[in-house]
Amino acid sequence: MTNLNQKKQQIIANLKAVRELKPLVVNITNYVVMNNTANALLAIGASPIMAHSKQEMAEMMSFSGALVINIGTLDSVWTPRMAYAVEQANANNKVVVLDPVGCGASQLRTETARNIVRTANKLIVRGNASEIIALAGEQAKSKGVDALDSSDAALDSAKFLANEYKCSVVVSGSTDYVVSETEVVQLNNGDTMMPYVTGMGCTHTALTGAFAAIGDTTGLASTAVLGIAGEIAAEKSAGPGSLQLNLLDVLYQLDDETLLNRLKIS
Amino acid sequence: MTNLNQKKQQIIANLKAVRELKPLVVNITNYVVMNNTANALLAIGASPIMAHSKQEMAEMMSFSGALVINIGTLDSVWTPRMAYAVEQANANNKVVVLDPVGCGASQLRTETARNIVRTANKLIVRGNASEIIALAGEQAKSKGVDALDSSDAALDSAKFLANEYKCSVVVSGSTDYVVSETEVVQLNNGDTMMPYVTGMGCTHTALTGAFAAIGDTTGLASTAVLGIAGEIAAEKSAGPGSLQLNLLDVLYQLDDETLLNRLKIS
Amino acid sequence: MTNLNQKKQQIIANLKAVRELKPLVVNITNYVVMNNTANALLAIGASPIMAHSKQEMAEMMSFSGALVINIGTLDSVWTPRMAYAVEQANANNKVVVLDPVGCGASQLRTETARNIVRTANKLIVRGNASEIIALAGEQAKSKGVDALDSSDAALDSAKFLANEYKCSVVVSGSTDYVVSETEVVQLNNGDTMMPYVTGMGCTHTALTGAFAAIGDTTGLASTAVLGIAGEIAAEKSAGPGSLQLNLLDVLYQLDDETLLNRLKIS
Repeated sequence: MTNLNQKKQQIIANLKAVRELKPLVVNITNYVVMNNTANALLAIGASPIMAHSKQEMAEMMSFSGALVINIGTLDSVWTPRMAYAVEQANANNKVVVLDPVGCGASQLRTETARNIVRTANKLIVRGNASEIIALAGEQAKSKGVDALDSSDAALDSAKFLANEYKCSVVVSGSTDYVVSETEVVQLNNGDTMMPYVTGMGCTHTALTGAFAAIGDTTGLASTAVLGIAGEIAAEKSAGPGSLQLNLLDVLYQLDDETLLNRLKIS
Repeated sequence: MTNLNQKKQQIIANLKAVRELKPLVVNITNYVVMNNTANALLAIGASPIMAHSKQEMAEMMSFSGALVINIGTLDSVWTPRMAYAVEQANANNKVVVLDPVGCGASQLRTETARNIVRTANKLIVRGNASEIIALAGEQAKSKGVDALDSSDAALDSAKFLANEYKCSVVVSGSTDYVVSETEVVQLNNGDTMMPYVTGMGCTHTALTGAFAAIGDTTGLASTAVLGIAGEIAAEKSAGPGSLQLNLLDVLYQLDDETLLNRLKIS
Repeated sequence: MTNLNQKKQQIIANLKAVRELKPLVVNITNYVVMNNTANALLAIGASPIMAHSKQEMAEMMSFSGALVINIGTLDSVWTPRMAYAVEQANANNKVVVLDPVGCGASQLRTETARNIVRTANKLIVRGNASEIIALAGEQAKSKGVDALDSSDAALDSAKFLANEYKCSVVVSGSTDYVVSETEVVQLNNGDTMMPYVTGMGCTHTALTGAFAAIGDTTGLASTAVLGIAGEIAAEKSAGPGSLQLNLLDVLYQLDDETLLNRLKIS
């Protein structure tokens, strides 16, 4: 319990730090969610930079706090930009947060995601179960996976990735798991309407970048904050259109007391 | 009347099928509407994939239900991707739904749209009157067009396209027409505020892809569903910002009774 | 005072003209805000065209009223398109409205923005203080800048640009300045929540394009309209998600009386 209380206090402290420090977060993300994720970063108090050109990435990474890479609409023009941005993040000792969107759905996605996992020095991966399973591949898969849609099914894969690449792995689902080399933290906030908004996972990843920029290299704070904000927003929403909007309002307003009262962590 | 009642029951059945089967729909669409159209597909119960790379299109089309192509922000990088995706849709016997955005406004748009119409084996075209008229070109135009802004004016062009390319053509306007080789169906739902939301037509086209993926190769179900959802959403909306949001909520909630009560078809 | 009253009447007249003439505005803008800015143009009554291909830009500029260029997500593929579009705007005697997003944050942005400023024949620049200061560079900077975050600090830079390039410069901040060769107009509408919505400045720039297309080459009308619409929308909004939506509704509904009552100009 003491350990969980420490974690709760750390999440509160991290949220405060994002709002005070307004960290710059560079995002190479997909076309679909650029607006949402920039808005989510602003709502939580961070400063989004949506930039991808090799011509400016070295400068951008020199004064930014973290790099978010999301492969949602990747192609042969964008993958070299992602690789170069990871090099610059490494050179500047910055955390890379990877969202392996659709990993497993095509060879291009699987290989691109794996290449980033292999090359990033400081890494957090945030994905859903099937993406994390595909990213880990055969070595983890061989342990047996029954429920492909449940985040439980991806736990072995997440642990494999955490150990193999010395990174943190966040698996999103009805239960969220934050997996490091040394522990697994389970969170049970959120709402079943959230998957009906496109890019809710991408927003999770972007927020993970904001918290990474102020020192949370686990992905725990963003997972807690988005789960709670999403469940509050869903309670006010007649459908996914309202949810997308209300989420931004709730992120903007979220206070410590609400966070502590709502948080389901174990 | 019996025929119309059958059509109404078919629309109900198609909506149920989309929600149960959650068909995957690949979208090569414009930058402006990617978020909206992905959200509309999710709200109606389908599974959007926003992908465009040649490196993964063969895989994507092998397990998806339909291909939506929207030329709204086309350029020399994207047009070959569109052509290649049509080839892959053909190879996998999937329907292509084309939105010829701005056809007639530039040679690039007119030629790109015509090229897709010529090459897609299974095709639905969804556009406004001026786009459909420009797509059909001189052969249809020679029959005389008076009211360039009305969907009525595009009927001859739509019929020409339907016969020439063995496709279905949906013409959007204050009256919507669903035109096949054998019949013309007229729908009168919708609201005058809808054109004040960018990409409302693109949303129509994306939804047409969802219904095509479960077997509606006419475009009728999506035209009915969007017209009705749009008019319900507009009744609740003080302006186009609210309308964009409310439309997603209404698509998510739409039930059979409301659909049957509202539907104006002839 | 007479002069200010004339300005107020001119703003009212310009809003009416946009709604009646529905000017076409070509936008080469960033991926993040394409949806918002297209929607803002529609809500105010203009007709957005989001197009960037060299293959159609000559045609597009021949029948459009203005060109908006926003460098928010620029790269080596897009900068030549921007340069070519400026050539076409010049050839067709159309106003170019530049948003130098992030000017000063990277060499690429600073050089690209400066190149556009040097080449556009008819020009309005709309940016925040740090962007305008970076755009003007050393010559203006040498006059001394203390408060880098305030729009006041950019006044010298704005005046330098206005004189050097015979253009109008709009500096956004808690106070907005509209700076021409001959005068400085100060506006004090808006709300502190506005910077929490991504692309609020980009929307300002896009609206400036709409008013430029009907003859306001100063940027005054768009600055007044957005400041007032933003402050009304913020009053109704629990957070930035609501604000983004309400802004579109308010732009759609804005009437002359509200505009005159709210306008803080000096």
